[in-house]
Amino acid sequence: MEVIVTLPQSALPIGPQGIFDVARELGVSEDHVEPYGRNKAKIDLAALARPASGAGRLVLVSAINPTPAGEGKTTTSIGLAMGMRRLGKRAVLCLREPSLGPVFGVKGGGTGGGRATLVPADDINLHFTGDIHAISTAHNLLSAMVDNACHFNTSFGDKGAIDPRQVTWGRALDMNDRALRNVVVGLGRKADGVPRQDRFDITAASEVMAIVALAEGPEDLERRLGRIVIGQSTSGAPITAADVGAASAMTALLRDAIKPNLVQTDEGGPALVHAGPFANIAHGCSSVVATRLGLLSGDYVITEAGFGFDLGGEKFLDIKCRTMGVFPRVLVLVATLRALKMHGGAPVKRAAEPDEKALEAGLAHLDKHLDSAVFFGLPVVVAINVFPNDTQEELALVDAAMKRRGVRAVRCEGFMRGGEGALELAEAVATAADATDGAPPAPRFTYELAEPLRDKITKIARTIYGADGVTFTAAAERDARRIEELGHGGVPICMAKTQLSLSDEPTLVGRPTNFQVTVREIRLSAGAGFAVALTGDMMTMPGLPREPSALRVKLLPTGKIRGLMQND
Amino acid sequence: MEVIVTLPQSALPIGPQGIFDVARELGVSEDHVEPYGRNKAKIDLAALARPASGAGRLVLVSAINPTPAGEGKTTTSIGLAMGMRRLGKRAVLCLREPSLGPVFGVKGGGTGGGRATLVPADDINLHFTGDIHAISTAHNLLSAMVDNACHFNTSFGDKGAIDPRQVTWGRALDMNDRALRNVVVGLGRKADGVPRQDRFDITAASEVMAIVALAEGPEDLERRLGRIVIGQSTSGAPITAADVGAASAMTALLRDAIKPNLVQTDEGGPALVHAGPFANIAHGCSSVVATRLGLLSGDYVITEAGFGFDLGGEKFLDIKCRTMGVFPRVLVLVATLRALKMHGGAPVKRAAEPDEKALEAGLAHLDKHLDSAVFFGLPVVVAINVFPNDTQEELALVDAAMKRRGVRAVRCEGFMRGGEGALELAEAVATAADATDGAPPAPRFTYELAEPLRDKITKIARTIYGADGVTFTAAAERDARRIEELGHGGVPICMAKTQLSLSDEPTLVGRPTNFQVTVREIRLSAGAGFAVALTGDMMTMPGLPREPSALRVKLLPTGKIRGLMQND
Repeated sequence: MEVIVTLPQSALPIGPQGIFDVARELGVSEDHVEPYGRNKAKIDLAALARPASGAGRLVLVSAINPTPAGEGKTTTSIGLAMGMRRLGKRAVLCLREPSLGPVFGVKGGGTGGGRATLVPADDINLHFTGDIHAISTAHNLLSAMVDNACHFNTSFGDKGAIDPRQVTWGRALDMNDRALRNVVVGLGRKADGVPRQDRFDITAASEVMAIVALAEGPEDLERRLGRIVIGQSTSGAPITAADVGAASAMTALLRDAIKPNLVQTDEGGPALVHAGPFANIAHGCSSVVATRLGLLSGDYVITEAGFGFDLGGEKFLDIKCRTMGVFPRVLVLVATLRALKMHGGAPVKRAAEPDEKALEAGLAHLDKHLDSAVFFGLPVVVAINVFPNDTQEELALVDAAMKRRGVRAVRCEGFMRGGEGALELAEAVATAADATDGAPPAPRFTYELAEPLRDKITKIARTIYGADGVTFTAAAERDARRIEELGHGGVPICMAKTQLSLSDEPTLVGRPTNFQVTVREIRLSAGAGFAVALTGDMMTMPGLPREPSALRVKLLPTGKIRGLMQND
Repeated sequence: MEVIVTLPQSALPIGPQGIFDVARELGVSEDHVEPYGRNKAKIDLAALARPASGAGRLVLVSAINPTPAGEGKTTTSIGLAMGMRRLGKRAVLCLREPSLGPVFGVKGGGTGGGRATLVPADDINLHFTGDIHAISTAHNLLSAMVDNACHFNTSFGDKGAIDPRQVTWGRALDMNDRALRNVVVGLGRKADGVPRQDRFDITAASEVMAIVALAEGPEDLERRLGRIVIGQSTSGAPITAADVGAASAMTALLRDAIKPNLVQTDEGGPALVHAGPFANIAHGCSSVVATRLGLLSGDYVITEAGFGFDLGGEKFLDIKCRTMGVFPRVLVLVATLRALKMHGGAPVKRAAEPDEKALEAGLAHLDKHLDSAVFFGLPVVVAINVFPNDTQEELALVDAAMKRRGVRAVRCEGFMRGGEGALELAEAVATAADATDGAPPAPRFTYELAEPLRDKITKIARTIYGADGVTFTAAAERDARRIEELGHGGVPICMAKTQLSLSDEPTLVGRPTNFQVTVREIRLSAGAGFAVALTGDMMTMPGLPREPSALRVKLLPTGKIRGLMQND
């Protein structure tokens, strides 16, 4: 057990630092820093080979299910880290890399907001250090090699040749582009390949993205890439990326992408922003190597699991924590009055107006997530992300309601006031994390790996979503059987579900009851080491809205870029 | 007129330097250097706003038409720059960025070979500083916005809505992937877009790549991107990227890609490696901004135009030099004995064996390029890239043949001996460049811009290829008419032709006569400012061979990558 030494405040400068200084604060020596421009860097994985210098207490930030009114989970995570640092505590942020799809679509960038942001926000929201591009490229190299093997009818030993009708590996692009959801490739003449149906997924949903996020280093990366199943041979045998001969070249393409990226908060604290799987259609967690680096260096590692606790939170615990052998000390659940009111039935246009009845009703939604936290054995701090026009009466109502439940609720004004506005939250979270010191929460999971796939999915739906049960389509039943026949039944489940509801129906806000979840397809990600269960209408390639954010994005003469954040 | 000061040899260290030292040698101050890792950097375009410190003599390196035996044009360019530097001359290399297509296909990387290479070769051959990925992304953002406008049937003022049957803007990927040459997108349900036929080009052939290569800075970039014609409206009006509202976001995506990349030769000399249009299916030249930076700083700027002089060389002069308002002082034509023998009829397996008859016959091929140099008014140095087993007899035969033609031929052993092996070539090239000092070659072009499109194409085919004339298909005739009706008839021509022959038929080596060139399609690149004439069977998306190089690429435990170069 490590002792937390609270540093004198003066030890930590408040404000942007040189990237080598940020690395030093993270305990990483200059040798292991590869600068990318002046204020971002990659950290060599050799930096992981040193004894821990921090207490390494993991703090999971998640949220209620998002609404159009906004919750500010990333902003609250950043504010929390800033607040801790102002208290003289060594805090490390571990966040995901934003995808260009949402940046140009509806949601905007993923670097916080107001006075709780990451630096350099423009770079992080665009190409950053190129990880996502490298992942798209590795994905599409495998696709090209698969189609090349179809074209030349290449035979893979006893397995035989790939059956073009049974290729399950699609292509990937970091873009919202609905026209690429269902395509036919290989048209033209004989020299132009074998015609077959195909799909493009957004890169954030690519198995290669999940593998980069979960790999422990280059060797593990290559092994996992080699295990990817791209489809079946004409004799029914599974064909892998290793069979096709693509895994080594894919690993080479990902040589730098596997290294964590270091940036900083507006106030100069270290932030490891690495890997970007979506939390609705992928497992939603930043990388294992970044988390390990954070745990080595920081006393508190603040990491965010995307979207609602039912989605990113569940997968963080059941997939990432199980794989890594770590478990958080405390869960921070982010909510806003507006979002709670929407969960209580208020329409988005009136969510900013006082409406205690809707607020009270919306708390039932929060309750479900609190129940799940209890299920996982996690202490909770509820963080109320305060907006300027939130009323004291409504804030007090939430405080009182949480007090009745025996849960600590703390207001956070990171958006408006930076770390200064998150001091109380920082204190509360540190206290909660430290309180578990004698008896850290024992890892508890929603299901055991040895259970049948359908049972695991059903347990998630019942326990975490509050569903009555799960309806599997005939296709999903077939998928489950096939995955178990291939010997991959023992993997955890990566649920693909709408983030807007606890159910698989986006319009059911609040705390829905008496519902079934429908699973229409199960995809094996043998390299990532999970099976993706697609529920409802979830699509793995988003579309652009009628008026995409891209219309507002512009490079200014100063070199700054306008329009990357929703509120720009 | 500048006076060339030959530096004492000791002034220039021979061997890899820190990237800031390389920048200093280039006359770029530290403020303008954005490091990417430890040994590559981007140069801020603000570095262009200073008075010239060098004589800025442009040296164009081109070659005979490539054969499977190899010519080593890039290797010779690098060796030449190394040799000049060893002579104490300020030489700057301006080269193109390699594409992943050839790296994983047949050709291998593009960073030279033997002892005449660029550092860091692995990085340059893979993602480098992310330029090509940024270009693919900008290209595909426009594609997604076009299909989005089709989906929502968005109307663009008086022009009306896009006609999905008349979209000419495809998608792009930096990959050899024949299955993507002809695709159908937008299949599925109503929510999945409008079904239509589409194509993917390799990014090196994207108009966005050409625009990045030709733009003078961010403003010019945005203007050119806005001019891209993506297709027609239902009323027949041309729809541009500006109409679709994509040009500003594309410019933002290219904010860093427009900045030249600085690396170095093995011996420490500055190399600006920036933009990578192919020379067969695109205009084949490195960026205008990199060339301008080189001309500001260097006494000799050594730049390479891809493939044979008929392709990259012609387009370098007729497109890039015309656009920039510069012209080279001297042309270096690279040839090897093996390649000459193949042009003289020797099969590839026997090209390494002595065969004076084939060699003599192959010189007719070289003669055609020498004629073209005379046409352009350019002094020529023929560089014989020497292989270890080349015989003295054959080398002497070439010397004598060149002497008869009044052309200086110099042997270059950069591959085997680095700069030391290119001293004679360096001396010869510098002498030739300096000799033009009183009367630099006046810009001469193959055609005038005001001529009709078909006449311009015909002049290139007759003058540079030696064709009898050009056959235009009915489709190409229609294309030409349409481009002229739109008011874009005054653009230069970007020929898309096989690099393997002076003709449009890849098997016709040597100096073919009595042939017609067939143009089957003409595509307008209004943003790049040229029209692409597709001849023969040229495809804008290559395929992988049966055994792609990707099979041999591997990340080694040292962090080095094996298999990126053909001879690895």
